[in-house]
Amino acid sequence: MKKIVTIGGGTGQFTLLSGLKNYPLNITAIVSMADDGGSTGRLRDELGVLPPGDIRQCLVALSESSQLLRDLMNYRFEKGDLKGHNFGNLFLSALEKIKGNFSEGVEEASKILDTKGRVIPVSEQKMNLCIKLNNGKILIGEKQLDHNKDVRKYGIEKIYLKPTVKIYKKALQAIKNADLIVIGPGDHYGSILPNILVKGVPEAIQKSKAKVVYNCNLTNKKGQTEKFDLDQYVEEINKYIGNNRIDFVIFRHQKPPEGLVEKYEKREGKKSIVEFNIGKKQKRSYRIIEAEVLRRERVNKNRNDLIANTRSFIRHDSNKLAKVLMEILELDNKKAIKKII
Amino acid sequence: MKKIVTIGGGTGQFTLLSGLKNYPLNITAIVSMADDGGSTGRLRDELGVLPPGDIRQCLVALSESSQLLRDLMNYRFEKGDLKGHNFGNLFLSALEKIKGNFSEGVEEASKILDTKGRVIPVSEQKMNLCIKLNNGKILIGEKQLDHNKDVRKYGIEKIYLKPTVKIYKKALQAIKNADLIVIGPGDHYGSILPNILVKGVPEAIQKSKAKVVYNCNLTNKKGQTEKFDLDQYVEEINKYIGNNRIDFVIFRHQKPPEGLVEKYEKREGKKSIVEFNIGKKQKRSYRIIEAEVLRRERVNKNRNDLIANTRSFIRHDSNKLAKVLMEILELDNKKAIKKII
Repeated sequence: MKKIVTIGGGTGQFTLLSGLKNYPLNITAIVSMADDGGSTGRLRDELGVLPPGDIRQCLVALSESSQLLRDLMNYRFEKGDLKGHNFGNLFLSALEKIKGNFSEGVEEASKILDTKGRVIPVSEQKMNLCIKLNNGKILIGEKQLDHNKDVRKYGIEKIYLKPTVKIYKKALQAIKNADLIVIGPGDHYGSILPNILVKGVPEAIQKSKAKVVYNCNLTNKKGQTEKFDLDQYVEEINKYIGNNRIDFVIFRHQKPPEGLVEKYEKREGKKSIVEFNIGKKQKRSYRIIEAEVLRRERVNKNRNDLIANTRSFIRHDSNKLAKVLMEILELDNKKAIKKII
Repeated sequence: MKKIVTIGGGTGQFTLLSGLKNYPLNITAIVSMADDGGSTGRLRDELGVLPPGDIRQCLVALSESSQLLRDLMNYRFEKGDLKGHNFGNLFLSALEKIKGNFSEGVEEASKILDTKGRVIPVSEQKMNLCIKLNNGKILIGEKQLDHNKDVRKYGIEKIYLKPTVKIYKKALQAIKNADLIVIGPGDHYGSILPNILVKGVPEAIQKSKAKVVYNCNLTNKKGQTEKFDLDQYVEEINKYIGNNRIDFVIFRHQKPPEGLVEKYEKREGKKSIVEFNIGKKQKRSYRIIEAEVLRRERVNKNRNDLIANTRSFIRHDSNKLAKVLMEILELDNKKAIKKII
């Protein structure tokens, strides 16, 4: 079986893995440990555990257990001291405490949830994301990205981890042996780059014999990736990895519906939909794969699942993304890919 | 398969079920919903759920899943907002919320934990235990029994539920069809009698064709069952059920070790070890089965299991109790029963 490694966190990786799990693949999801907001942040602070939120989303995506068990993992308590806590996060934190180690806890969770594939923290060390703004101010903690108004006001100069942390040996092994490494989709500064900032990750990706694919984000965030186009995303990731290592970039073939675009521009400013300008560069170190990857069904806010949250309504489609990746792996007929540039 | 129904709650029922599950029996555990202390009490107050604690203990006792999953259900958080909460209680409360109904949540938990047998709340209504003391004062809430000093000082005149609650239809069905109904061991006022106070339970036990066995408690509690002997326990339970319905009483054949007896008398007063005085009554409506049912191994306080808590050190042995019950069901050779009076 072909070995596929995904790198990211959050809802983007949930979407990606939900599609990939339907194919005969050996899947390893590598997940950032930088999250420190919400239920995850409270558990991190109060119990001293590693952040469970993104790991949980990946486990649920890959789980072949009952819908009920998956609903349970996503259940959020609504009242009392437990308010805002996600049951699956408590499950992972309790397992970490019992096993005495986060990654062993995750392995056990994986057995209980009967996952197709492995979920692995990028590092076994706690990660503290530092965000340097264009006004020189330094913010500490991933949650600042979406909750500190200065980010939207001044924009980000760069991000880094302090102290530096080292790649987890199983993540290193997975990257080394992969046939395909898939980066994103996911929050650029919150999920994607924090993985690549981990010592050993860029080197491992550089050395791996795998094809490296980047699922380009569909939308920008004000103050973060404001007005980014496809090339800016790729160049920044390539800068962190080194060696122009990205081979393919998957990009939407069609535009999102006009109404949605307007809604985004109202919230995130002009050019909040990521564009690709073919004439901008003469030569690129990566090939661009245009494909129909947008989710077309209306996202139902009330469904008790992860895709249903309100963060964003322009989203990738799990199955469409997976189909394109299978074509890149040459395991499927070329039907999903519309154009290779 | 013979149908056995156990009635109780807490550690006593955990002990009983842990032994019974090794036999080819159709087991139904009926559990009191009166608990309102600790983690269970907080969930009841804050989330408005039915009390999960005793149900959880029964599910774990009957679970055939991995040791890890059972350890997880008993895991207690040690810090932060979650401090004191038991993971298994959160699990049951989340399932109740998702399914919209406690008993359905318990059924799902039972599937996830792969239990051998069913665990059923005695009622689907919330139970409020009222405790009338000998000085006329009325205390409300099961947790008062062990935490209100007036109980130890004045003693209990009677207990009742206000408002009255009705038996859950599946509990009724189980009692009706049982071959053997086993009451106790368990906290007399906290677990055993609250089940029998539920409207429909005494009538169902009276009508059932089952043999009714009472596992007599081994120790007394100051202010509650102070100086009770075997006959007082049985008479009080018979009074609540009506019709002298208890057929057999299982009682220890040997005394607990002298050192332990002293320890109990120091804490709970004289006669804190339940005695049986054969000459006290000329005729009894129940037969007394003497058997070696005491747990002999030292209870290790540090083991992550339910038997290991410090509430009591004179305990029933799971396997010995089960053996005697199998003999009463005539499914085993008469070896465990020492004497029938």
